[in-house]
Amino acid sequence: MPASPHPVSRGARNPGSQTALRELNQQRIIDALLGGGPSTQAELARQTGLSTATVSNIIKNMAHSGIVATEPTTSSGRRALLVRLISNGAVAVGIDFGRRHLRIVIVTLGHVVVDEVYVELPPGHRAEEGIDRATELLAGMLERHAIAPSSVLGVGVGIPGPIDQRTNTVVQGAILPEWEGIHLPDLEKRLHFPVVFDNDANLGALAEVTWGPHNSVENLAFVKVGSGIGAGLILNGRPYYGSIGITGEIGHETIVDNGLVCHCGNRGCLETVASTSVMMQLLSRGGAATVTTADIVQNALGGDPATLRVLDDSGVAIGRALASIANLINPQVIVIGGPLAGLGEILLEPVQRGLRRHAVPSVGAATTIVMSALGDRAEVLGAASLVLQPSGLRQN
Amino acid sequence: MPASPHPVSRGARNPGSQTALRELNQQRIIDALLGGGPSTQAELARQTGLSTATVSNIIKNMAHSGIVATEPTTSSGRRALLVRLISNGAVAVGIDFGRRHLRIVIVTLGHVVVDEVYVELPPGHRAEEGIDRATELLAGMLERHAIAPSSVLGVGVGIPGPIDQRTNTVVQGAILPEWEGIHLPDLEKRLHFPVVFDNDANLGALAEVTWGPHNSVENLAFVKVGSGIGAGLILNGRPYYGSIGITGEIGHETIVDNGLVCHCGNRGCLETVASTSVMMQLLSRGGAATVTTADIVQNALGGDPATLRVLDDSGVAIGRALASIANLINPQVIVIGGPLAGLGEILLEPVQRGLRRHAVPSVGAATTIVMSALGDRAEVLGAASLVLQPSGLRQN
Repeated sequence: MPASPHPVSRGARNPGSQTALRELNQQRIIDALLGGGPSTQAELARQTGLSTATVSNIIKNMAHSGIVATEPTTSSGRRALLVRLISNGAVAVGIDFGRRHLRIVIVTLGHVVVDEVYVELPPGHRAEEGIDRATELLAGMLERHAIAPSSVLGVGVGIPGPIDQRTNTVVQGAILPEWEGIHLPDLEKRLHFPVVFDNDANLGALAEVTWGPHNSVENLAFVKVGSGIGAGLILNGRPYYGSIGITGEIGHETIVDNGLVCHCGNRGCLETVASTSVMMQLLSRGGAATVTTADIVQNALGGDPATLRVLDDSGVAIGRALASIANLINPQVIVIGGPLAGLGEILLEPVQRGLRRHAVPSVGAATTIVMSALGDRAEVLGAASLVLQPSGLRQN
Repeated sequence: MPASPHPVSRGARNPGSQTALRELNQQRIIDALLGGGPSTQAELARQTGLSTATVSNIIKNMAHSGIVATEPTTSSGRRALLVRLISNGAVAVGIDFGRRHLRIVIVTLGHVVVDEVYVELPPGHRAEEGIDRATELLAGMLERHAIAPSSVLGVGVGIPGPIDQRTNTVVQGAILPEWEGIHLPDLEKRLHFPVVFDNDANLGALAEVTWGPHNSVENLAFVKVGSGIGAGLILNGRPYYGSIGITGEIGHETIVDNGLVCHCGNRGCLETVASTSVMMQLLSRGGAATVTTADIVQNALGGDPATLRVLDDSGVAIGRALASIANLINPQVIVIGGPLAGLGEILLEPVQRGLRRHAVPSVGAATTIVMSALGDRAEVLGAASLVLQPSGLRQN
């Protein structure tokens, strides 16, 4: 395993370990500072239940990493150390790599977007080209806003494919051949910043509970419907990574027995009936021009019957997969993101119908399904949030 | 919500709350005592990172509840308070209610079974009859071993149906009409002991990580295959309850499009093709006698072709549902329990075949499927373990 910080090494994997305990304690302190503003170490100890020695140790590390600043003060007539989160000037960067696009945001610790850039990438580009383009664009953005590189706490990177945490590489190269074999921790060398990375659906889920309206939701699934279909999970209030880091693979739930062959090697997977690629193929049939995702959204909003029918069938199939999520892990909210998020009710209604048809009634009735309010920015905002997560912070 | 302690009110639902924090802190102390034996309060503070004031408060409550005993000692020449878990004489009780049986265990805090009783119950008995029978049997067991009621830390109860934590009642009365409408916290009044309760599959999962060979597994699913099929989940090292307490409902994953009508109101659910009830029906067809679960096990071990074929078909269908579990939450281990656990390879092989056929290859390859080593005792042992869980302890 590389020494570099990355989300898959995040705590809670072994709750008894010293590292997990330290991360948990650091998170408590950050939560207390976020909730209560600048506080003395003694106040932080009281609020968190931690000993003053533990608090002092953690604060020392956080100050060293540039996460907090400390200054002497007095409290009840005694000397004390005031601790505050550094938010003046410090920023986090999010980068979302798609198969055909690249999106970058610079955000403050107070969740304000300083700058945002979106560019199309040529189909079939190599991952290295995308990464170099991102490095170049980010340098320009920082320069434009006169942000010193030392103010960048870190860069969160979203990868549109499942990441095997045992090797820190993207698996199933067939979906994302461009990224196959890339050793993700090497991103640090190319981006010249501390890097944390995660699968894009996981980042969408994180965005929904940090940037979106769902920050009080303990158990949430974010389902990205795009050329692939995958879910990111927040369970018990934290991103969930499972045993090897590959979770939420609902795109490969069997929907049609002995259906079309899927790139995963199976047949009749959800992705073979409901991905945007399949919709594009279906709607391009016999037509002169190739239908794009943007066309699907536009035609559906314009009331085109064929487009609506394809979306209806896809929606019901997606709803069936969401029923599996609901039946198994009973999330309070399932958020649908990706390029079709703007369709609103047009996609939501058949998805809900599919869910109701296949979920255990009491569970289905207790599950809220909504379209993402963050649209296709969820992943990149989540990438920035990842930097601000406890183990997303640089650890040099 | 009732004041009575029960697992569905267990912490982590709102990690920021004071209750959740207190439970988490108490769990740290118990873990330290379990790992390091009797310790002074100062040692516990050092080991857990908690302040001495926090430790002292929690120890006071735990001593009041009879979980720990304290005695004065000296440490490095200073007065100190030695804390030890009470294990002399203190016991926990587990009761597993089935549709047609009742099983009770008395266990020590050191995970030794003191006594165990299994009785058949008449089909269609009312829940109250089962509860009264359990009360009677338990009294006899305690008397036989000269265990004073005050030594019983609590009684963990397993219920063979999903529990809606919003109402603390069993939902879907159709599976378990006997228990419909029973307000589970009322069990305390009938059993005359502090009661904690949970769904039986959840308890099976808990047993596997406390009594079974999987105590280092962070993410585990326990799948009970019986007259119903359901899963209990351990995620990030803790029992997982979802949003309303109903999780692991894999018995209602659609396996056959427009298949047989299921008692849940849907069609073609896993339970309509792979439950022991369905196997019994299939194998009783045309025969003179009704085939029981015990017959299925015996006939399969004896090589009966029809029994083996039915088990093979059921196994593949179960494997398909396990693939959904693997794809979504990527557990390290899936354990199969219930009355067929003794079949070993005969059931395991087709289940593995079904999993490989339907799981994302990298996830399927990383998922270990085993038959429960605890057999049909998993649920009752898990019920006893529930008493020893942090919030399973009585809170008067």
